[in-house]
Amino acid sequence: MVMDFSVVGALDAVSEVVERIKKRRVLALYFIGSTKTSTIPGLSIAGATPEVTLYTPACDVEYLVYGEPRSFDAIPMTPEGIPTPAIITRSCINICRIPYLVVDAGSAVEPKIPHVRLPSRTVGEPINTGRALPYEVAKALYEEARALAHMLCGADVYLLGESIPGGTTTALGIMSALGYDAWGKVSSASPTNPHHLKERVVREGLERSGLRVDEARRDPIRAVSALGDPVHVSMAGFLEGALENEADVVLAGGTQMSSVLAIAKHMNVELRGVVVATTRWLVSDPSSSISALVRSIDPSIPIVSMNLDFSKSPYEGLRYYERGYVKEGVGAGGMAFITHVLTKRSAREIEESIYEEYKRLIRAREPKAR
Amino acid sequence: MVMDFSVVGALDAVSEVVERIKKRRVLALYFIGSTKTSTIPGLSIAGATPEVTLYTPACDVEYLVYGEPRSFDAIPMTPEGIPTPAIITRSCINICRIPYLVVDAGSAVEPKIPHVRLPSRTVGEPINTGRALPYEVAKALYEEARALAHMLCGADVYLLGESIPGGTTTALGIMSALGYDAWGKVSSASPTNPHHLKERVVREGLERSGLRVDEARRDPIRAVSALGDPVHVSMAGFLEGALENEADVVLAGGTQMSSVLAIAKHMNVELRGVVVATTRWLVSDPSSSISALVRSIDPSIPIVSMNLDFSKSPYEGLRYYERGYVKEGVGAGGMAFITHVLTKRSAREIEESIYEEYKRLIRAREPKAR
Repeated sequence: MVMDFSVVGALDAVSEVVERIKKRRVLALYFIGSTKTSTIPGLSIAGATPEVTLYTPACDVEYLVYGEPRSFDAIPMTPEGIPTPAIITRSCINICRIPYLVVDAGSAVEPKIPHVRLPSRTVGEPINTGRALPYEVAKALYEEARALAHMLCGADVYLLGESIPGGTTTALGIMSALGYDAWGKVSSASPTNPHHLKERVVREGLERSGLRVDEARRDPIRAVSALGDPVHVSMAGFLEGALENEADVVLAGGTQMSSVLAIAKHMNVELRGVVVATTRWLVSDPSSSISALVRSIDPSIPIVSMNLDFSKSPYEGLRYYERGYVKEGVGAGGMAFITHVLTKRSAREIEESIYEEYKRLIRAREPKAR
Repeated sequence: MVMDFSVVGALDAVSEVVERIKKRRVLALYFIGSTKTSTIPGLSIAGATPEVTLYTPACDVEYLVYGEPRSFDAIPMTPEGIPTPAIITRSCINICRIPYLVVDAGSAVEPKIPHVRLPSRTVGEPINTGRALPYEVAKALYEEARALAHMLCGADVYLLGESIPGGTTTALGIMSALGYDAWGKVSSASPTNPHHLKERVVREGLERSGLRVDEARRDPIRAVSALGDPVHVSMAGFLEGALENEADVVLAGGTQMSSVLAIAKHMNVELRGVVVATTRWLVSDPSSSISALVRSIDPSIPIVSMNLDFSKSPYEGLRYYERGYVKEGVGAGGMAFITHVLTKRSAREIEESIYEEYKRLIRAREPKAR
């Protein structure tokens, strides 16, 4: 029998979060932003062309809210029919009806939905420059997101998801600047993970920034300023605020979540009550290692992975997920986990809802009959 | 003995809301926006000069979150020391720690706090033009705020407050366009309510718009488009969404709340589960009549007023409230009511906290010792 979800690490910590989720005071927040790193050719496939990756976060969250993008006239899938991971998130929100918000930390395109705006929102520069964000901006984003967590006090559990093309490369940048060995360990939305290119971009940025590991560990905002992006630092700030409220936090994402943990850790945040939640595709990815990354930052943090399986999907576009495409994003795995806990639906039943949503999407692509 | 709060209308409806508040799933939202109506000389005193009223909403909510305005280098009080009503709201949030958000429906100045942005946010034109907002903008604000309520599902009670200088005049405009006799009944932040000026502005707008009452009642968005503003229509949209979620709604404000009710009523929203909550200063104001206004729209909706009394305040600035200044705003009365219900603090105890906050504020005004 296949379990609905698997756990790497402390089971008791997962049980505690599950008990708190069941009280139904859960709030999900999806942080979106852009880094021009994603426009470096070959780095991100989260868009038809490198430039189009700048539209992806806005389109993802517009689709999440309205079922279709508004900033771009296309359904949120590749020409091959591979859909955005937001299809999983949207299906789960429709099932379990938990409240959610989108937080714009610096999307190149302002999403056409009601969304939270951080005043210091800024698109990140390409990190091979070693100057990703002005220091004051990176610091302000952390503090603004932390203030937001205090404004939104009262939940038992916060789920934090993200949409930032190029995010695994900036995550590699942040972790490398902070002295973690993350080379070859971050994931990719592509089955052919461009590790060499990511490493070249990050090494170039490290060199140009001149930042030393001890300096970065004393003040991780410097690592973000040199090789980060607007999203991960904002998630780390929210994480601190949420833990100050004595809530638990589900970091819903892949290898990028380790960079959120790394920033928070070196901001001296005590990481008790944090769980990383993702998908089976991510934890079983042979081209990355989320468990090695999380363990290197804090071995007490467990990783939950929802055992979603699209191999029996009637839709070719979803079966691509089984071949290493997409894997995770927009909080997909974590939302599936929370939906399972709240509604007792099995992974199989959640997959069925995703197939229904996919059917709706491809029908929307068909030319309308007159 | 003085009661902590008074009720006009259905007591049982108030009891129901009180029971739901006690479950502690309450979310407060403060809608901010601007209308150039506030820059008509003599209409609004919510700012040192007519132009400065455009800064007031941003300063109010910056003060709410950070304890000081950020967009304007001044403490949030008049030269006489009369503070913004947000001093009540902030004191109450500090006591009862309920979650809250600020929603920007069209503030002339973007507030320097994390806030929700409605994509169609727009500053309203002076309503004597009869063209306050483009029709499509007014309609979109309603729908976006309604969508926001669905994103934020899960609370039992939503408290909706506002900050929009000139708001009583636009409220008069909306109600008049919808055929209600509101002449001489809307409130003012000044003890000398400029009814004649408000009436002239609204009559001019009515005439220029050419809008007939039957047209406006069929489509209240037309009333908003002609004589409204971005805030009240957004609050009405959120109200509809919240009631669709089977939540209760505390409309926390003065006579302006009747225009929110009027818009929603003619959008065919069933107004069960709605309570207006305000201050004693507002309900006892001889120059306005909130009870006549609310009754004319829906007599089943009760009005709760928190019996705050600053006559024994050690601070002259607060005693101005007893002489008809300010009265209400930024959800002050409703937040005091919810704080009383949640924490059992008496009106007297809440006043003490407000005096403490006032003391902090005037100290911030003193030149710093070196």
